Amino acid sequence: MLLKKRIYEILEKGEDGDQISKRFDIFIIILIILNVILVIAETEEHLYTEYKQWMDAFEKVSVLIFTLEYLLRIWTCTYATKYAHPLWGRLSFIFSFGALIDLLAILPFYLPLIFKLDGRFLRVLRLFRLFRLFKMGRYSTAFRLIQNVIRDRKEELAVSFSILVILLVVASGLMYYIENSVQPESFSSIPETMWWGVATLTTVGYGDMYPITGLGRLLAAIIAILGIGVFALPAGIIASGFEAELSKRNKNS
Amino acid sequence: MLLKKRIYEILEKGEDGDQISKRFDIFIIILIILNVILVIAETEEHLYTEYKQWMDAFEKVSVLIFTLEYLLRIWTCTYATKYAHPLWGRLSFIFSFGALIDLLAILPFYLPLIFKLDGRFLRVLRLFRLFRLFKMGRYSTAFRLIQNVIRDRKEELAVSFSILVILLVVASGLMYYIENSVQPESFSSIPETMWWGVATLTTVGYGDMYPITGLGRLLAAIIAILGIGVFALPAGIIASGFEAELSKRNKNS
Amino acid sequence: MLLKKRIYEILEKGEDGDQISKRFDIFIIILIILNVILVIAETEEHLYTEYKQWMDAFEKVSVLIFTLEYLLRIWTCTYATKYAHPLWGRLSFIFSFGALIDLLAILPFYLPLIFKLDGRFLRVLRLFRLFRLFKMGRYSTAFRLIQNVIRDRKEELAVSFSILVILLVVASGLMYYIENSVQPESFSSIPETMWWGVATLTTVGYGDMYPITGLGRLLAAIIAILGIGVFALPAGIIASGFEAELSKRNKNS
Amino acid sequence: MLLKKRIYEILEKGEDGDQISKRFDIFIIILIILNVILVIAETEEHLYTEYKQWMDAFEKVSVLIFTLEYLLRIWTCTYATKYAHPLWGRLSFIFSFGALIDLLAILPFYLPLIFKLDGRFLRVLRLFRLFRLFKMGRYSTAFRLIQNVIRDRKEELAVSFSILVILLVVASGLMYYIENSVQPESFSSIPETMWWGVATLTTVGYGDMYPITGLGRLLAAIIAILGIGVFALPAGIIASGFEAELSKRNKNS
Repeated sequence: MLLKKRIYEILEKGEDGDQISKRFDIFIIILIILNVILVIAETEEHLYTEYKQWMDAFEKVSVLIFTLEYLLRIWTCTYATKYAHPLWGRLSFIFSFGALIDLLAILPFYLPLIFKLDGRFLRVLRLFRLFRLFKMGRYSTAFRLIQNVIRDRKEELAVSFSILVILLVVASGLMYYIENSVQPESFSSIPETMWWGVATLTTVGYGDMYPITGLGRLLAAIIAILGIGVFALPAGIIASGFEAELSKRNKNS
Repeated sequence: MLLKKRIYEILEKGEDGDQISKRFDIFIIILIILNVILVIAETEEHLYTEYKQWMDAFEKVSVLIFTLEYLLRIWTCTYATKYAHPLWGRLSFIFSFGALIDLLAILPFYLPLIFKLDGRFLRVLRLFRLFRLFKMGRYSTAFRLIQNVIRDRKEELAVSFSILVILLVVASGLMYYIENSVQPESFSSIPETMWWGVATLTTVGYGDMYPITGLGRLLAAIIAILGIGVFALPAGIIASGFEAELSKRNKNS
Repeated sequence: MLLKKRIYEILEKGEDGDQISKRFDIFIIILIILNVILVIAETEEHLYTEYKQWMDAFEKVSVLIFTLEYLLRIWTCTYATKYAHPLWGRLSFIFSFGALIDLLAILPFYLPLIFKLDGRFLRVLRLFRLFRLFKMGRYSTAFRLIQNVIRDRKEELAVSFSILVILLVVASGLMYYIENSVQPESFSSIPETMWWGVATLTTVGYGDMYPITGLGRLLAAIIAILGIGVFALPAGIIASGFEAELSKRNKNS
Repeated sequence: MLLKKRIYEILEKGEDGDQISKRFDIFIIILIILNVILVIAETEEHLYTEYKQWMDAFEKVSVLIFTLEYLLRIWTCTYATKYAHPLWGRLSFIFSFGALIDLLAILPFYLPLIFKLDGRFLRVLRLFRLFRLFKMGRYSTAFRLIQNVIRDRKEELAVSFSILVILLVVASGLMYYIENSVQPESFSSIPETMWWGVATLTTVGYGDMYPITGLGRLLAAIIAILGIGVFALPAGIIASGFEAELSKRNKNS
């Protein structure tokens, strides 16, 4: 079973010196990027009508390659110690995050062949092909560093997020009571006012909704200033997270 | 008084292994979230007219539970060493931050039963139920970490805030003198111009007010660029605060 | 000269235990804040016409107190070792940052009494009273910490600022050539286009100017994303500055 | 060849005590800034028609000086150990980043003298003179510090950027399917929707495109909040980068 082992090595992120494995990684990454560009380009009416044939052909070839990759991964996954058991190992591999993404990447092609789907659902399904992007996470070590930092600080980040939501709810509630009588159209309910609240707290500020009363403006000013803290908190948390992660690495090496 | 002790344990944040206490915490958190969703949903006219009965019933049950929780907390608080004295301990517990929030959460229901209140005040009072959200702070350790960081750095954060306010006042004053003659409607006074100032310094930029003269735009550009510092300062302060807090913890453990 | 020494102590930031000095500090801070509120309120036409008398009286009393404070500071400054010499010490004190701010705070009142000034200049002069705000910097230790951090990192911050300006100039130059032919009104010259550039790089985004061509939007997208770095750089610089400053303090104590 | 050595020293960043070299640096920096101001001012029609002669003359003199500087740099570069070889050293210097920038700064003047260029290309070429700005990077040590930090963390920053792009593509894809049926004009394709996506993720928020359906607003809110992380990640990465770079320096000294 030397071939199986070799395929496993090629499918995994290429180690230094293994030229074929590295080239395969780059091939897959380029294929993913081309696929995503295709999904984007398809929505431009005039491009789609003109190049429909080529696009559909490219889609078919891509799905074929991705399907092959998916099946080979399932076949060879037993070389990883985690998934060593021929049956249970394979099953737990199939339900791992990476493999599920791989499945999601090809499913939008096969589902309409099996089930009869209506047009609207089909369109949403086509969009799912965008998730092929996530297949790329496998190849970057820096991505794993960032993942670790976020995982280590997930509780603090969740609390920052909760503070943001609480602020949003309270601010929108107050603003609704202040502006509703003057602008009943825009600030018609708390959920509607939350649209203003998000735009203000995140400092996006589309400008489609804003208070016009003196009290409303005062509240909006306070919320916009508190919005600064909403940026400062996660920035500070992540900064200290990187610090900790990198000093941990230095100790180990 | 074994029952009293048990109730105290259940009301407090659940320790590892105490399943009942943990489940009670989750029950209260879900009840709070449902209550807040209710306050938000009530402001959607069509939802309120349709489900009025159910909403009012849910409100009544919730207040009942929160009232019971509040009274039991006052009864059992003497198990905390801080509030050990049956009278003075209880009094100082009642005026603690957590207990006041608990009171504020139920008061909007009882006040109209005791006092005759006019409609407008009643509506504002209903909004106070949103403060039930703050009851949740009790259950998170990450929340306390963030609280500590902010408390440790409160002087520096206050100074950043003062710099922001000073910048705002000076910028709005200058802009008022520059733009008032060209746009007397929008930039009609310094307080009005401060609305532009806040939107610019916090980079919200609604776009309802902006300078049109060359000098005004130059000033706005300078203010917008200084606004970057207004974000960088608190982010830097909080980052170093987290660093300090976490290295303190590592030393203790 | 015990009185002179006592006055010096009272004028300086109050040390622990010196109740009179502390109360004097608070008195001056409140006076400054009231003055600034007055300058802001004066620009509201209806307030000024109604309360003109009171406002002018309050202004006169304030200037009297600030003038007295200024003169006493000059008289007693020789107790500071830096300004010990009766003549040269005093002169160098008069030209220190703090004393110049004190002078600027009262000058707008005295200048029109001495020189004949036209109305427009007078109005700008009134605005100078806003600089009284800067008198407050004297009383905060956290303000000095932030000042130190900014001073220590001023070179790095200046480079971040230069990068911002270079980015702004290049982006506006490119955008001018791209959008000028389609929107000759808005993007009429590079200086005009820089107004768009500032709004985009600082993420203010008023929405009064934006590209409509495909190429222009692509450039705007790149600039907006680079604008994130423009925030991240000073935030990172200041964070490491605080770290360094605080660890320096810990070593000394 | 003492003269050659002296010219080399003068062209390089001036060391302490070498007054002539320092003054030459400042002269070149001022010349660069004046040139950039000229490029900007030229696009103001009325300024250009009035001062055309002066502007063209100044441009000619500047190019003469920059050309002389460029040639002298090539002549004397052999004093740097990196470029010691008279031929290969010089060639590798010519293709170094700094020398290429120097060439780009003067090329827009010489090209039209050699080749026949059409008007549109000539206008773009004139803009290239803005790249003279990058000549200034040579003179700042803080600039090199920032360069080092970015180079050390380039992988993490690239990943942050990738996350931003992935988020942008997925968000725009979803938003296109949600809003397309209600606002077919604005959200006409995924590329068009990406213009909204960039404005939201970077919190610029021009306000020319925004969702109006409930589902669209919910998605926009989530994207705007995730946009906060898009700022927090690079800020944290750069903060930890500065920390590392500065502690490295302290160890060496």
